[in-house]
Amino acid sequence: MDLQASRTVVCAALNFRATVVGLADAFTRDPYKKPPTAPVLYFKPANTWVADGDPILCPPGVAHLRMGGTLGVVMGSKACRVNERNALSFVAGYVVVNDVSIPHDSYYRPAIKERCRDGFHPMGTLQDLAAITNPNVLTIRIYVNGRLLAENSTANLVRSVERLIADVTEFMTLEAGDVLVVGEPDNAPLAKIGDRVRIEIDHIGAIENTIVEAA
Amino acid sequence: MDLQASRTVVCAALNFRATVVGLADAFTRDPYKKPPTAPVLYFKPANTWVADGDPILCPPGVAHLRMGGTLGVVMGSKACRVNERNALSFVAGYVVVNDVSIPHDSYYRPAIKERCRDGFHPMGTLQDLAAITNPNVLTIRIYVNGRLLAENSTANLVRSVERLIADVTEFMTLEAGDVLVVGEPDNAPLAKIGDRVRIEIDHIGAIENTIVEAA
Repeated sequence: MDLQASRTVVCAALNFRATVVGLADAFTRDPYKKPPTAPVLYFKPANTWVADGDPILCPPGVAHLRMGGTLGVVMGSKACRVNERNALSFVAGYVVVNDVSIPHDSYYRPAIKERCRDGFHPMGTLQDLAAITNPNVLTIRIYVNGRLLAENSTANLVRSVERLIADVTEFMTLEAGDVLVVGEPDNAPLAKIGDRVRIEIDHIGAIENTIVEAA
Repeated sequence: MDLQASRTVVCAALNFRATVVGLADAFTRDPYKKPPTAPVLYFKPANTWVADGDPILCPPGVAHLRMGGTLGVVMGSKACRVNERNALSFVAGYVVVNDVSIPHDSYYRPAIKERCRDGFHPMGTLQDLAAITNPNVLTIRIYVNGRLLAENSTANLVRSVERLIADVTEFMTLEAGDVLVVGEPDNAPLAKIGDRVRIEIDHIGAIENTIVEAA
């Protein structure tokens, strides 16, 4: 399955527990008054999709990019209003992704300009289900120039893989090849031009991309 | 060109002047303090795309849908950091679209659940450039059951077609077949199950879709 031919890549924001805890105070103020009760989603359009080994382009004048190494869930069949209990039967497999962004702290406007730039979504190749019995216990490691800068686990998701599939397909049908990204880890590190960034997920694999200056 | 095979449909929010004027007071308060200075964009993913004549599915428990009849600009070639002055040379043509949504008034979280439901983006067929010398003077008419409920014009855009192409391609490359939607008109009317909705744009054509109850 060629993920570069996917139609939709949809991502969950605020889906690592420590992110939500860190924003607890902000959520009590205007305009929200309370933490989100439904998943907060955003899209990574086709112009952002690149492969393992492709350069990540850093825009002029931007000092650092955030390396949101995380898990992508690849749908194996049409999924519409799927029940959480059999959600994994709609999954073809998993993929390592790097949900790259320009650091930003506004949760009040969709961060399209910070997240949807060309090449801001490296994805590896689909790994089938054989090795994965539970996608909610996978360790994610983010290395910059060979140094481990962040480690996290899908055990820290606010919404599990099954729950996200149920929540998203409740209102939008996903097709085979569509990718549901479980969220940027709360401790996603920064990297800069020249850095080699490796995202590794247990049993799934790794991708490695170098940050280069955009022409 | 088959628009159902497009990769990306990107839309501008708050791009009719009267919308921005109507929100002027809200923009002076927290968290924004001022009106947006860059285009506010959102995506309509592939699950939303349907054709002229296809049903628009109204979710259970929703009384009305908003009929955002407006203009789609179809790219004819790869467009990256395009200059406003020659932006139209990257355009293949235009299409009538209905940017359907569940009425919502929060501008603080992306309205994915309100805008990205299956079938919430009827699009007509591509009309080539021959008849269109200036896309910023087109009258848009929205009829419900044959009655004209809203009339607007692309002359009322905050950002012209050329300016939007320049602003969007400054950070994301658009490919041939991608669709840039100029925005939902400020006076987009509501419609309900059973209503037949026709969107008409001068020189471009019309689409007609009926709202049906989602199974």
